[in-house]
Amino acid sequence: MNKRKIAVVITARPSYSRVKTVLKAIQDHPQLELQLIVAASALLERYGSAVNYIEQDGFQIAAKVFNVLEGENLTAAAKTTGIGILELSTVFDNLVPDIVVTVADRFETMATAVSASYMNIPLAHIQGGEVTGNIDEKVRHAITKLADYHFTASENAKQRVIRLGENPDFVFNTGCPSIDIASDIADISPLPFDPYEKYGGVGAKPDLSNGYLVVMQHPVTTEYKDSRKHIEETLTAVAALNIPVLWFWPNVDAGADGTSTGIRSFRESNRLGHVHFFKNMEGGDFLILLNNAIGLIGNSSVGIRECAFLGVPVVNIGSRQHKRDRGYNVTDVGYDKEAILEAVQTIISNPRPQRSGVYGGGTAGKAIAAILSQTDLRFHKTITY
Amino acid sequence: MNKRKIAVVITARPSYSRVKTVLKAIQDHPQLELQLIVAASALLERYGSAVNYIEQDGFQIAAKVFNVLEGENLTAAAKTTGIGILELSTVFDNLVPDIVVTVADRFETMATAVSASYMNIPLAHIQGGEVTGNIDEKVRHAITKLADYHFTASENAKQRVIRLGENPDFVFNTGCPSIDIASDIADISPLPFDPYEKYGGVGAKPDLSNGYLVVMQHPVTTEYKDSRKHIEETLTAVAALNIPVLWFWPNVDAGADGTSTGIRSFRESNRLGHVHFFKNMEGGDFLILLNNAIGLIGNSSVGIRECAFLGVPVVNIGSRQHKRDRGYNVTDVGYDKEAILEAVQTIISNPRPQRSGVYGGGTAGKAIAAILSQTDLRFHKTITY
Amino acid sequence: MNKRKIAVVITARPSYSRVKTVLKAIQDHPQLELQLIVAASALLERYGSAVNYIEQDGFQIAAKVFNVLEGENLTAAAKTTGIGILELSTVFDNLVPDIVVTVADRFETMATAVSASYMNIPLAHIQGGEVTGNIDEKVRHAITKLADYHFTASENAKQRVIRLGENPDFVFNTGCPSIDIASDIADISPLPFDPYEKYGGVGAKPDLSNGYLVVMQHPVTTEYKDSRKHIEETLTAVAALNIPVLWFWPNVDAGADGTSTGIRSFRESNRLGHVHFFKNMEGGDFLILLNNAIGLIGNSSVGIRECAFLGVPVVNIGSRQHKRDRGYNVTDVGYDKEAILEAVQTIISNPRPQRSGVYGGGTAGKAIAAILSQTDLRFHKTITY
Amino acid sequence: MNKRKIAVVITARPSYSRVKTVLKAIQDHPQLELQLIVAASALLERYGSAVNYIEQDGFQIAAKVFNVLEGENLTAAAKTTGIGILELSTVFDNLVPDIVVTVADRFETMATAVSASYMNIPLAHIQGGEVTGNIDEKVRHAITKLADYHFTASENAKQRVIRLGENPDFVFNTGCPSIDIASDIADISPLPFDPYEKYGGVGAKPDLSNGYLVVMQHPVTTEYKDSRKHIEETLTAVAALNIPVLWFWPNVDAGADGTSTGIRSFRESNRLGHVHFFKNMEGGDFLILLNNAIGLIGNSSVGIRECAFLGVPVVNIGSRQHKRDRGYNVTDVGYDKEAILEAVQTIISNPRPQRSGVYGGGTAGKAIAAILSQTDLRFHKTITY
Repeated sequence: MNKRKIAVVITARPSYSRVKTVLKAIQDHPQLELQLIVAASALLERYGSAVNYIEQDGFQIAAKVFNVLEGENLTAAAKTTGIGILELSTVFDNLVPDIVVTVADRFETMATAVSASYMNIPLAHIQGGEVTGNIDEKVRHAITKLADYHFTASENAKQRVIRLGENPDFVFNTGCPSIDIASDIADISPLPFDPYEKYGGVGAKPDLSNGYLVVMQHPVTTEYKDSRKHIEETLTAVAALNIPVLWFWPNVDAGADGTSTGIRSFRESNRLGHVHFFKNMEGGDFLILLNNAIGLIGNSSVGIRECAFLGVPVVNIGSRQHKRDRGYNVTDVGYDKEAILEAVQTIISNPRPQRSGVYGGGTAGKAIAAILSQTDLRFHKTITY
Repeated sequence: MNKRKIAVVITARPSYSRVKTVLKAIQDHPQLELQLIVAASALLERYGSAVNYIEQDGFQIAAKVFNVLEGENLTAAAKTTGIGILELSTVFDNLVPDIVVTVADRFETMATAVSASYMNIPLAHIQGGEVTGNIDEKVRHAITKLADYHFTASENAKQRVIRLGENPDFVFNTGCPSIDIASDIADISPLPFDPYEKYGGVGAKPDLSNGYLVVMQHPVTTEYKDSRKHIEETLTAVAALNIPVLWFWPNVDAGADGTSTGIRSFRESNRLGHVHFFKNMEGGDFLILLNNAIGLIGNSSVGIRECAFLGVPVVNIGSRQHKRDRGYNVTDVGYDKEAILEAVQTIISNPRPQRSGVYGGGTAGKAIAAILSQTDLRFHKTITY
Repeated sequence: MNKRKIAVVITARPSYSRVKTVLKAIQDHPQLELQLIVAASALLERYGSAVNYIEQDGFQIAAKVFNVLEGENLTAAAKTTGIGILELSTVFDNLVPDIVVTVADRFETMATAVSASYMNIPLAHIQGGEVTGNIDEKVRHAITKLADYHFTASENAKQRVIRLGENPDFVFNTGCPSIDIASDIADISPLPFDPYEKYGGVGAKPDLSNGYLVVMQHPVTTEYKDSRKHIEETLTAVAALNIPVLWFWPNVDAGADGTSTGIRSFRESNRLGHVHFFKNMEGGDFLILLNNAIGLIGNSSVGIRECAFLGVPVVNIGSRQHKRDRGYNVTDVGYDKEAILEAVQTIISNPRPQRSGVYGGGTAGKAIAAILSQTDLRFHKTITY
Repeated sequence: MNKRKIAVVITARPSYSRVKTVLKAIQDHPQLELQLIVAASALLERYGSAVNYIEQDGFQIAAKVFNVLEGENLTAAAKTTGIGILELSTVFDNLVPDIVVTVADRFETMATAVSASYMNIPLAHIQGGEVTGNIDEKVRHAITKLADYHFTASENAKQRVIRLGENPDFVFNTGCPSIDIASDIADISPLPFDPYEKYGGVGAKPDLSNGYLVVMQHPVTTEYKDSRKHIEETLTAVAALNIPVLWFWPNVDAGADGTSTGIRSFRESNRLGHVHFFKNMEGGDFLILLNNAIGLIGNSSVGIRECAFLGVPVVNIGSRQHKRDRGYNVTDVGYDKEAILEAVQTIISNPRPQRSGVYGGGTAGKAIAAILSQTDLRFHKTITY
């Protein structure tokens, strides 16, 4: 029997971390063949060279597509998507997958969705149905309308996909695959590696043995003109702390320049003797680092998902995770240094929050692979109302 | 006061016909400035050179974009869309419109929608919310999720857009602008021009004074491998008639080759002494021709919309107009020569059907322009549930 | 030992015919691995689907790239080249060839040359150094300046490449690979197949047993506005003949519409009882057909090259083969029905011309493969003066 | 009378500086209309936002094209060129220029050359015929073979273009337009502005009143893997000096990452109390700065051209300016800290070199505009041998 060929397109470092267990489960499934395509910022050094981790993790790459247009403005985001369609169509034409899988809602994932759906290749979407209120939401729901199978991360998300007119037979709440990894590492402590030694980075090297905070704040597409101002509030708050801080560099996005420039400039004019900056970290290590942290500050989705499962307290800043389902671990604050500082103090003085299964229990990867191996191949659908 | 700049992207001959009154109303509106962009098959001779009609109608073109990739397969459709995004982004970047308008659901209209929404330019969509059950539907609903304003052609369509989670304040049932033109010509008879002389074409030139049928059948994207077989059923049925037939050449679409090849090949091996073939016809003349016809055969949307308003009987073949709202004038049949022939006989022997306002009453163009001039500029939205 | 990977990009039916023996020789060479990339019009049905012949001939295709932009105008030619670069770069990045080979001077071959040379992949050019005086010449010499190895078809061409400042150590007069095939079939007669039966086509089926003429006339890029007028001169001349004529459809090129439209229109209004039209023919069969013909009319390079070797008389029309080296078999005429007719009469009444080795003796394919297997890998060069 | 429309495509900050007087002369010419197109890195903040200077200088921009693909590797350079062709073709199609002008030999200038020549628009090339021995040379000579008019910067370059087979009637040694600006500023001293205040930048702010050195070193495309090692030699040499140093950030090019990373990393681990870093400077100010400097270190072409005219001593490092014509002011050294240091000492202890007219005398802009206004419009050419 021929194996089903499942093409998965990875376009960014965080997407790779999120679906790594899906890739593994597809690769290991006796009836599936993985066709891994690495594109966009996942190939770029500036954004953490996810491609290197992918190769180190033993995945074979079927095709690489460089399609990020420079500019870090909105025009460039649109054009990156256009180039992605142009090239992914050729890749699909040559690889002839049975199903294409696209992940989440980054702008360039639309390229995968358009290419596959236009070519009548059944399209699976991981992580549809969530609500955030920005451009990502337009992208996410538009992809839902192009996709034939939906693997949602929560029950709320599943219900929303169904309300969008999708056939319930093809909407599956598998939980978020990012939780799969979190479920493996949940009990490791203390930190089994030295992050400075293993991941380099720049800045101070404060002693981490008495606790530390992690910061990860990305620019928000619809607010990109303010991204420098926003990051400066966080920088000022962090500067006022006297706890060790491990700060992770932002992803590519329109506005990355504002965020990056803000960080660089602040560093040059302020002493940050307790802060170390990392470009990136292997996903499993990052979760261990979080699990051992006093808390996470910023707007990363890891704070909403993995940290909900792990019970790591999170100070979530601004609109980026707006309206996503939350566990018991999140304190929401605005772009405001005082509010950030106050929320951090509260975290420090309170016990660790309860764990939550809102984003699944650690079996998403295998569940998705199983469905992909059995589901009817379909690319023809109609709205249910 | 500065006028609002409204960019409208026209990518095909039938789209132009459909929204001509919108373009006129924008052009004539004291607070609006029209930025007309002509792209894709609207520029190509093979598909009727809509660009020539646009210029003859006195519209000034702000930019032309050639982006149709050859192949007439699904890969080419995807790539055409990718090139469209790449180039329309540059065009929008240079023209700086306040609102971008995209029309209907042809595959390449996604390019307009992605470019505008990704660039945070408010996006208006004409003719969302309809149901057809093919790739067009994926495209149409995905564009709804990217668009900020919705101008629907019927009340059902409006309700469907709202169910898709759009804010009702920005969903407007203006009726279909194609009806605007139909409302102007409804009473002209007999035929005020000689179609053979005015539009050339090839084949027999049967006398039209005792009535004639019109045929217009496009390939269906999701059935493109069968497009030749499908057209042959219609050809066989038409060959068996003894009424004059005016046949219009299909649009570009994946599968055009099958349809076109089928027609060419049938013509070479069959005498069609009562059939004349046209490449295209100016929209107003085409409606007059339809209004004076015994009926229309095929799968054109004109049979569903304008003919509903005009009360012209239609034999609608196959799945292309599946699930669209219907007036009182449509007989649906499969790809089956017998069924087609029988339906034509029924049309001939029955009185003309009643007119219907299901697709509006002839004021859509002005209504759309008025809303565009007054609505809040928005590009930030969230799903309503 | 690892084999050298040789990527050859085929973009059109005639290019494939020309270098087939090179492909074969690379495939058969113990130290070489062939990476065959099929792109542009070689993939399109409208231009003879070279890809089908390639597969039938047993070559494995490493990648297909659809990149022909519609329009058949000069803008489309430029854009086709741009898309080609964009996509071939990805293909090369994924295939990692040691040497890339590009053929001749069609506009889109520039895409291969730019991608390879910009990526520091050693670039070999087959058929540089020829003179024709049109856009092809700009392309050809520009590619020479990008290429690292040069395989010319004649001694004159070799000398010209050297005068262009190329290092003589890397300029090889191997002869034209198209002659390799001609050298194999030179003695076959009478026609060992029925062309009507084997290749279909349309039009009359005149008896070929008492001799026939072959016509093949392509549009000329720099004269594309006149292509219809030019083809009509030939059509009128051919209509006046009373010898069987086998007419081959033109390639894609800016202006194909004029040539094609001219032929279609002439056919509709003139009886051509002695003319049969073919879309294409397998290269070996075509040479046999030519070798058995009274002569060839048109502007195909086959008249200049293969027919020189075979000694088939040629009436060469217009500027397309201007300044190329000639054997003893060519009569040059302008776009003038009288002159064409007169030249045909002269051919008929004269003995078959002498054979010429100006374009090589039939070993080009093997010679090129041998050099590719041994030459230093280089992509760094400087002009010699 | 209609003015001739002259489209000039500017793709990088240094190209703008170089041809500013040409743009001015075209703009001021009564028979010419300037169509200025700004593309590629000229639009990007990372590379000095040339577009801002262009607008400040009062030029109106007809179109902007973002086409730089990220990656800073060779694949990205090729793809940037492909996107450039795709989009510039649309721009030319919409602007309908009479002549297109392209500048020098940066990789992406090939896009301008291919688009214009393929569209039969007469193409003028500024600064052909020079010899450098790297990928720039392939690009430069290939553009010569696509161009119809040649404006060379020196007599040697003119002779080389003619040897490349170009018609001498269309090859003009106008001198380099960069000298036009240098001829205006030649006598200004002392520094009429405070560079720290006017241009910001980072690092130390040494007192400049007793002399200073300027450094500008770009990565070399064909050596991009070594660019970090190369820059470190220069950094080490500079670190050992005790004279004020003004260091300018490199252009975009494959390898920019190596150069930039090298500089950033060196700065973090070394005290450079006498070095200030600038991102960019307006061209006129930069020349004043150079003219008042003790000397220039690096591999910028400004050292070869403007500094030859001004008589500013230059330590020219490595292969980037290899084989270009030199005045009396250049000391060539390898990528070797000792050699760099020694050459700097020699400059300091020797009198200022004599001025040279090898790159023209300051009238290139006007000469080029005059020729563009009078020359025959031609796009059809053939090699002269």
